Amino acid sequence: MKQSELFTKTLREAPKDEEAVNAQLLIRAGFINKTMAGSYSFLPLGLRVLNKIENAVRNEMNAIGGQEILMSMLHPKALWETTGGWNNIDVLFKVPSRTEKEYALAQSAEEAVTPLVLKHATTYKDLPLAVYQIHWKFRDELRAKSGILRGREFLMKDMYSFHETQADFDKFYAKAKKSYLKLYKSLGLTAKATEASGGAFSQKISYEFMVLTDAGEDDIFYCDKCEFCVNSEISKQNIGEKCQKCGKGVLHRAKASEVGNVFDLSDKYGKDFKLTFLDKNNERKHPIMGCYGVGVTRLMGVIVEKYHDEKGIIWPESVSPFKAHLLRLADPKSKAGKLADKIYAYLLADNIEVLYDERTVSAGQKFADADLIGIPWRLVVSEKTGAKIEVKARNSKKVNLMSYGSLRQIL
Amino acid sequence: MKQSELFTKTLREAPKDEEAVNAQLLIRAGFINKTMAGSYSFLPLGLRVLNKIENAVRNEMNAIGGQEILMSMLHPKALWETTGGWNNIDVLFKVPSRTEKEYALAQSAEEAVTPLVLKHATTYKDLPLAVYQIHWKFRDELRAKSGILRGREFLMKDMYSFHETQADFDKFYAKAKKSYLKLYKSLGLTAKATEASGGAFSQKISYEFMVLTDAGEDDIFYCDKCEFCVNSEISKQNIGEKCQKCGKGVLHRAKASEVGNVFDLSDKYGKDFKLTFLDKNNERKHPIMGCYGVGVTRLMGVIVEKYHDEKGIIWPESVSPFKAHLLRLADPKSKAGKLADKIYAYLLADNIEVLYDERTVSAGQKFADADLIGIPWRLVVSEKTGAKIEVKARNSKKVNLMSYGSLRQIL
Repeated sequence: MKQSELFTKTLREAPKDEEAVNAQLLIRAGFINKTMAGSYSFLPLGLRVLNKIENAVRNEMNAIGGQEILMSMLHPKALWETTGGWNNIDVLFKVPSRTEKEYALAQSAEEAVTPLVLKHATTYKDLPLAVYQIHWKFRDELRAKSGILRGREFLMKDMYSFHETQADFDKFYAKAKKSYLKLYKSLGLTAKATEASGGAFSQKISYEFMVLTDAGEDDIFYCDKCEFCVNSEISKQNIGEKCQKCGKGVLHRAKASEVGNVFDLSDKYGKDFKLTFLDKNNERKHPIMGCYGVGVTRLMGVIVEKYHDEKGIIWPESVSPFKAHLLRLADPKSKAGKLADKIYAYLLADNIEVLYDERTVSAGQKFADADLIGIPWRLVVSEKTGAKIEVKARNSKKVNLMSYGSLRQIL
Repeated sequence: MKQSELFTKTLREAPKDEEAVNAQLLIRAGFINKTMAGSYSFLPLGLRVLNKIENAVRNEMNAIGGQEILMSMLHPKALWETTGGWNNIDVLFKVPSRTEKEYALAQSAEEAVTPLVLKHATTYKDLPLAVYQIHWKFRDELRAKSGILRGREFLMKDMYSFHETQADFDKFYAKAKKSYLKLYKSLGLTAKATEASGGAFSQKISYEFMVLTDAGEDDIFYCDKCEFCVNSEISKQNIGEKCQKCGKGVLHRAKASEVGNVFDLSDKYGKDFKLTFLDKNNERKHPIMGCYGVGVTRLMGVIVEKYHDEKGIIWPESVSPFKAHLLRLADPKSKAGKLADKIYAYLLADNIEVLYDERTVSAGQKFADADLIGIPWRLVVSEKTGAKIEVKARNSKKVNLMSYGSLRQIL
């Protein structure tokens, strides 16, 4: 894409009320726009990143047998009264209407998915099954100051699984956990599966997937030898103590950001809605359910928190809006200018996603914008580079002169 | 995809309160699920159709230079007060919050897009520009009885264009109109550009794109000789009269469904928000704006209203969830059963989207489901078909025995 055709520009300043580094950088670089605290719009560059994260999530969920759906966001009050959420979930937006009916705005979708799935899955032969959606959620947050880490509206993947038995649920959970860790790795993140409390309705332990980052809102204790990790709120041990799990390591404290979670819902929702399936013995049973969340917009924010420097964002290749940022630092009609056009055409023909900065602005502005936007490979063509291309990785200071052929070896 | 792996089943009956044919068929065939009147969830088959319509819309908008974005759905009250919408738009959902702030739920996005775009487009050099989103909207409908034709939440493509002059807007409008007619045609629909009133805020004539269908909520008068078409509400002529435009044809009345619209917003939103760009003479000017809508979920409903018979849906190929529906009417271990498996593998290898009904249910059930689901090509492999495949188009009664090679000529 030609940068002159992109309607967004880099901005000198983020809004004064914007405290979070992720939103400051994403706004200044033209990825997002702030409508108000907790609500952001995604601009062409930002939407490209969001789509990439979304597709990575989708591929992982499909790989473990999840079936994609899209559930309504407006729910009748009755569904949330049935489960107790109407009065107990403080972040639930309640929407009045002209017909004097009240609606809930989905902050999660157990209330919608349970009746939906059990209309179609009626016997044990239909189980296990897992459905998921990648859809917007709403939460009435008192404070929304973490940029896209914690929004009043946000994009989330929520999967729900339905099982005959607890054992079958446990098996699926292990599969989902593995798939989550693989997903985060593909996005350039290392996440720890952390024991946490079960939330509003469950006495059970749930798991949160945590990425260690100073911008994190959670405190975790983790073992420096084994995989053990626990939210500090429910830890029975203190930092400095020997890990109870492996008996070898020592517990450390860290700030972390939640990028996913999984809840064992047991048979709560089947019971609440009085919905059952027919088991092998021809008896009516409530399904054992699990819920598996991944914050998609939140992941975008966490990646920026983790990958940036004083000049701007440093996107991991897997989610970058483009793979290469080609800068033409020459008169369009000069030999170098024409070479830049040619390199752009080559990259397009080779299916390399490239943003081509062919604007008539200063070299300094182009370099500053490239650093702020943070595409992994910066390619410069100027009078000085002759028949070659000056190649620099965003996460390195090293600059190399390369032929197009050599460049293609690394892209 | 194997049909046994699809969690949805066809249902004998739609909910009793479901009056609309589109929703009745889509629910029974397992494309959608009703959360409540006006709010539906999209199940795997339905999501496939929605994605296809969405991509057709996206391609057309990209082709005329639209840049895709995704805007927040929660807006601060102040934005809608500035434009007068807070008190004047009766379908606007107003959402209270714990912080005592009130929010509007986007029913359209002029209020969000105007400040957003004019933050980046600051001079005449940045114009014209057009941004669009394919995103969910909310409307507080008093009655929501038309299935997915008129929902309380619905997926819509809304594009907004920004121009220096009225003349430049007119030029872009002509381009958009052409692109709309092309889009509808690609979806199997013939739409008429109909003159209508300008809506809540505009004195100007707007255009609605209407598909003639008995399920339509609008009355239109159209000329049987030329392209003239007008909403009956604002028509200055009556049916039976000679068309004032071409002077040759006669006006007829028809029921129609709106599948898109375009509004000339003039400089209203720039004025309301006191936002300007710098023109060629270095003077501050409000941009001339246009708004261009396409109802994406509505289109899905209109297609079903137009393309169905007493047995079920008849999808146009361009939006069908699958191109072919392969039915195995034989024991899996028999020769015919194994041939069906082989045909399925061939189709997958040839990148033909195919739903494979390999379930152990009766032939009658499989035929009935195939008719209800409405995939364009039904392929049957049974003991009777020998080495060949029985091929039937959903919109025809003719049945042909074909080799796989001949089948590939028509798929």
